[in-house]
Amino acid sequence: MLLLITYDVNTENEAGKKRLRKVAKQCQNYGRRVQNSVFECIVDQAQSVTLKSLLTEIIDDKVDSLRFYYLGNNYKTKIEHIGVERGIAVDQPLFL
Amino acid sequence: MLLLITYDVNTENEAGKKRLRKVAKQCQNYGRRVQNSVFECIVDQAQSVTLKSLLTEIIDDKVDSLRFYYLGNNYKTKIEHIGVERGIAVDQPLFL
Repeated sequence: MLLLITYDVNTENEAGKKRLRKVAKQCQNYGRRVQNSVFECIVDQAQSVTLKSLLTEIIDDKVDSLRFYYLGNNYKTKIEHIGVERGIAVDQPLFL
Repeated sequence: MLLLITYDVNTENEAGKKRLRKVAKQCQNYGRRVQNSVFECIVDQAQSVTLKSLLTEIIDDKVDSLRFYYLGNNYKTKIEHIGVERGIAVDQPLFL
């Protein structure tokens, strides 16, 4: 299924910047960055629980915000993009 | 239905900052800001077309990015939040 993760991490201090890098790194392990603070991850139920737990441990829940949107398996018709793109489709083959 | 809008606007110059303000302002007319660059809008089909068209006209599609996620009517079970919250639920009554 597609798990969309959006986050706002308060980067007013060094600790915040570190949290931001950690959140991005974990998300990158599971999917692709489509915008600065938006990741699309293809995960199964177990992976989604793991990822959520990892991110919850990283953030400071008094100042940071994490949102998870569960878009299911038929997500392709539910997404539209306009403008510049970054990354490649998460389930697209990588030709190196 | 719930239309989730995420955006990255390139704010390297004044024109970009202006586009960012305009995008946020239009989104605010249709929903609530849940994160810095993430809006949740409750719209019908016609409103979603209008909003998409308005935003497309504002952004510079060579440097900015807009993504639309259609979460349907049964969106409540599809969203999870962790950490600090901003705004109120989009379909929640406002007691002033």
